[in-house]
Amino acid sequence: METYTQLYNLLNKSLSELNDSFDKHPKELYDPQKYILSLGGKRIRPLLTLIGADLFNCDPGKAIHAAHAVELFHNFSLIHDDIMDNAPLRRGNATVHEKWNTNIAILSGDAMLVKAYQELNKCEACFLPQLLQLFNQTAIEVCEGQQLDMNFETLDEVAIEDYVRMIGLKTAVLLGCSLQMGSIIAGADDQSQQHIYNFGKEIGVAFQLKDDILDVYGNSEKVGKQTGGDIISNKKTFLLLKSLELANKEQRHELNFWLTKIDFDKNEKISSVKNIFDQLNIETISEKEMSKHYSSALANLRSIDCNHQKKNQLFSFAESLIEREF
Amino acid sequence: METYTQLYNLLNKSLSELNDSFDKHPKELYDPQKYILSLGGKRIRPLLTLIGADLFNCDPGKAIHAAHAVELFHNFSLIHDDIMDNAPLRRGNATVHEKWNTNIAILSGDAMLVKAYQELNKCEACFLPQLLQLFNQTAIEVCEGQQLDMNFETLDEVAIEDYVRMIGLKTAVLLGCSLQMGSIIAGADDQSQQHIYNFGKEIGVAFQLKDDILDVYGNSEKVGKQTGGDIISNKKTFLLLKSLELANKEQRHELNFWLTKIDFDKNEKISSVKNIFDQLNIETISEKEMSKHYSSALANLRSIDCNHQKKNQLFSFAESLIEREF
Repeated sequence: METYTQLYNLLNKSLSELNDSFDKHPKELYDPQKYILSLGGKRIRPLLTLIGADLFNCDPGKAIHAAHAVELFHNFSLIHDDIMDNAPLRRGNATVHEKWNTNIAILSGDAMLVKAYQELNKCEACFLPQLLQLFNQTAIEVCEGQQLDMNFETLDEVAIEDYVRMIGLKTAVLLGCSLQMGSIIAGADDQSQQHIYNFGKEIGVAFQLKDDILDVYGNSEKVGKQTGGDIISNKKTFLLLKSLELANKEQRHELNFWLTKIDFDKNEKISSVKNIFDQLNIETISEKEMSKHYSSALANLRSIDCNHQKKNQLFSFAESLIEREF
Repeated sequence: METYTQLYNLLNKSLSELNDSFDKHPKELYDPQKYILSLGGKRIRPLLTLIGADLFNCDPGKAIHAAHAVELFHNFSLIHDDIMDNAPLRRGNATVHEKWNTNIAILSGDAMLVKAYQELNKCEACFLPQLLQLFNQTAIEVCEGQQLDMNFETLDEVAIEDYVRMIGLKTAVLLGCSLQMGSIIAGADDQSQQHIYNFGKEIGVAFQLKDDILDVYGNSEKVGKQTGGDIISNKKTFLLLKSLELANKEQRHELNFWLTKIDFDKNEKISSVKNIFDQLNIETISEKEMSKHYSSALANLRSIDCNHQKKNQLFSFAESLIEREF
């Protein structure tokens, strides 16, 4: 059995080799790909692919190219999402379209998506149809999720179930896919594959809900930044959407007042909106929704017939993702 | 043996079914894909895939999903290129980013690229690694070609060999790829595959050079539009780059005069630049360069050991692409 630290080491070594493969011309096409990969990030998705292989007793090295594929796909989507969201910063550094320009960000993103398929094609040929099927389906769903997210921005009201569906598509399916790809390469049976996919997807939804909660109720010292950023930017989080659903006439009026106010004192807006959240018991309701998905994730993991020690390691890893305070 | 009309009928029927698969939600993601495909175009690339299969005695129906993949890829690249080129029109209709917006054009293009891989994954599994390898390599080269083309826009001088290399990457490799994909599915041997690829690529380069020539020396009545559009927009065509290479000091001075002039009479600019082209014998030089690639294409086709009737049909098709007057 491999410890997760060993898996991380394997991953970081191979990602650094992957990074060297971008030393090519034309530089305007390859430098942005090298740049975004070098910004780091937690590398959770490719790690999950190696974990998915290891869990079913497969040498994780066999899944390394599939791991590259999910990391490349994730970074492609960051480059293009950052253009669409007009985001200036990514992991504390200039986004690709800011550092270069939008055209370069579009094209280097495209090339990075193709590169993901090149890595996929290095996997053992017998697994290729199944890997491609899953990877393609997931990639389409991520696009659908991003489109729904953009659509929501211009809607006055978004139903809670639509929001949960959106985060499922935009962020969670890729976690399920990452794990399942490892399990495919390990030759796991269909039922185990489905369970590990569901585990990853549900953890992904729970993780995103936790993000929403921490932005308002996180420990700002541990987060290392002021909480309430989502409130200031009117981001349609689970907390805001649920409040709009539960608010009485007066509370809804006050929420709309803050949502439409152009000039405001940031702290005043945060504390006023948070006050309504508190009146409506939103923290508890959100925690409950998160727990529902977390429990579903754990139930799926429990159903998998595999080495207990490995399973426990994955339980602990899931806990560390969800029980975080920042 | 199938006539090309039969192949076209097969293709159009299946592309219309493919088009129906875009009746999905979210509509903002799928409508643009349906729209660009419905604008038509000559469908040369997917036709070449069917031709590539038929040439080696394979039922062209077996290559239909590979044909879809190249057509989807081509249309994805049109959507994204139109954003980068800031183009208002495509085939006489509004471009996707004009009809919707840039974000929708980026994302629907991404989804269309993924859809191409979904079609590829419907091909017989035993051919998948080879098809993917070729398709990925081609897709990367098309991105490189587009990047080089964008780089050239801001350069004062571009060497002729760099220009020919750029059009090779940006437009010609996809023709070679389209044909070779058909030949892979037909189980053609490596050497035949290489010849049919080279044939397609060289025809592609010759076709693009013909485009450059026709813009200046085409029969404007047959083209149905005023010639000289490339001269007006200072497009770095083979003709312009070759003139800059061959011009004496005086001619270079006059070319630069017209290249930098902001306000000008269109007809005066066209006739003045064309006059220098004529002095330098550019039409003949360009025809010669085109013929070089056309001859190389034909030599490759000649080398292929296959049914003579089919081969002759492809010779005629190549001739129709290159000997056109518009």
